[in-house]
Amino acid sequence: MTTIAIAGFGKIARDQHLPALRDNRDFELTAIASRNATLEGVDNHQDLDALLSAVPALDAVALCTPPQVRYAQAVAAIEAGKHVLLEKPPGVSLSEVEDLVRRAKQQGVTLYATWHAREAAGVEKAREWLSTRRVTGVDIQWREDVRQWHPGQQWVWEPGGLGVFDPGINALSIVTRILPEAFFLREATLEVPENCQSPIGATLEFTDVHDTPIHADFDWRQTGPQTWQITVDTEDGKLVLDSGGSQLSINGERIIDGEDVEYAGLYRRFAELIRKGQSDVDVAPFRHVADAFLLGRRQSVEAFIE
Amino acid sequence: MTTIAIAGFGKIARDQHLPALRDNRDFELTAIASRNATLEGVDNHQDLDALLSAVPALDAVALCTPPQVRYAQAVAAIEAGKHVLLEKPPGVSLSEVEDLVRRAKQQGVTLYATWHAREAAGVEKAREWLSTRRVTGVDIQWREDVRQWHPGQQWVWEPGGLGVFDPGINALSIVTRILPEAFFLREATLEVPENCQSPIGATLEFTDVHDTPIHADFDWRQTGPQTWQITVDTEDGKLVLDSGGSQLSINGERIIDGEDVEYAGLYRRFAELIRKGQSDVDVAPFRHVADAFLLGRRQSVEAFIE
Repeated sequence: MTTIAIAGFGKIARDQHLPALRDNRDFELTAIASRNATLEGVDNHQDLDALLSAVPALDAVALCTPPQVRYAQAVAAIEAGKHVLLEKPPGVSLSEVEDLVRRAKQQGVTLYATWHAREAAGVEKAREWLSTRRVTGVDIQWREDVRQWHPGQQWVWEPGGLGVFDPGINALSIVTRILPEAFFLREATLEVPENCQSPIGATLEFTDVHDTPIHADFDWRQTGPQTWQITVDTEDGKLVLDSGGSQLSINGERIIDGEDVEYAGLYRRFAELIRKGQSDVDVAPFRHVADAFLLGRRQSVEAFIE
Repeated sequence: MTTIAIAGFGKIARDQHLPALRDNRDFELTAIASRNATLEGVDNHQDLDALLSAVPALDAVALCTPPQVRYAQAVAAIEAGKHVLLEKPPGVSLSEVEDLVRRAKQQGVTLYATWHAREAAGVEKAREWLSTRRVTGVDIQWREDVRQWHPGQQWVWEPGGLGVFDPGINALSIVTRILPEAFFLREATLEVPENCQSPIGATLEFTDVHDTPIHADFDWRQTGPQTWQITVDTEDGKLVLDSGGSQLSINGERIIDGEDVEYAGLYRRFAELIRKGQSDVDVAPFRHVADAFLLGRRQSVEAFIE
């Protein structure tokens, strides 16, 4: 049994990490570090440093804090000899993620940069089906309502918060997993509210080695039904991942209509990595986001008022 | 003798690449691809594709075009089996540089992503002196007049043109070479003229594994004397690289006061890489720039009118 603490007990920790840990027999949640929240039945601490001092026998830490503070916490946990699970994105800069990889290796602990969307029910089957096919076009529609999913979360608009790339990186984590070829950005437009630092909408044009057009629309202004859909055209027909990857259709036939199993999958994988003494840090989705900030043309749009 | 062509015959090609190639006995410049310029005594072509078709025996290509068009040219040259030298920065996205590395490997040609500032006379000695010392602080001042160095070059202000990071990446290429520890960005401010996409000024705060403060000021609005200076404080005293790295002082004593030897060094290195069948692509300076665009807080400043 691996004892684990959660740092940052906000929405994602309560909605996803807590139930996933309760259903997983490899882990025992023994402590929480949170400034504002507490959880009955475990040790509660104001911050991670206090927790690490108070619970020296702890094996692992799941970091569910906003990305802007995650690096310092990850360093503290790694230096204390803990295995570390990082919520996505793994940091606020590519260079700091490189530094965490180096530190985890030096300390001999597992570092797992999670991409929860990759665990959605249809993703592995989609990857398998596409692995032997020639892709001719990709369309990514990732449109949701920021007010619904990030209520009161000012950090998403700050530098390092990524704006609409916070959900968009989920799409990128799926597409980098299922497409048989690497791809890269050719141009991008970022729509930035005049009172924010981060984009509320983005249009991205990628290509791969075969000049396949790969188009993405990310939008945080969609009210009503939410859209998390990836359509892949191939020489053998059309594959559609819908509902964030949990539904898979091929040539109009529904192959998979799964439940939300993402965080269960993450903790299974974390347990496996710890058992094998391995780390898993794939920066490709985050690198694409950095490329979009580097190469994107910014347009100022209407102020965002929550 | 390696036959080489230059693609993009603008200011940097004429001022630097041409004299460096004329002084290097490993290379023979046989062709130019340029829409507007020609050079006497070599084959002149309107674009690289025409050149590659017309001069099939060519061994290598130096890409001196703006970064926005360099990727497609690099692909064409690599697929034609040519060794490729890339001016800095190596591309407009990190992912496309990854793709070039993969392609060069597949084709068995040399790909060299140059950082000319690393060849400045004082850099290797600085690296050597710092390699055994504990650094306590770094200050980077990189301030120049964009009107003097990039007259009429509208591409520097476009997405992918990097703005003040076009010179700033030179400083980053030196600092990533001479410091004994990796470092990473903590915060940044980017000053973007209200009529441009790219910053005209930037302030960057980095740290390394020892929490060493590493501060950088990049500014493109400096008239009068130009400043390209890196100061490194250590437990054994102060090292100063000045004039872009060509002058080195340690504890007040001038150790090196060199001439401009940067591009001569690049072509010596390119010849060596070709001879050994190797590539050299270090993305660290470019990754730091991507991090600054990702994590930087943008401030709108006065319009830039050339």
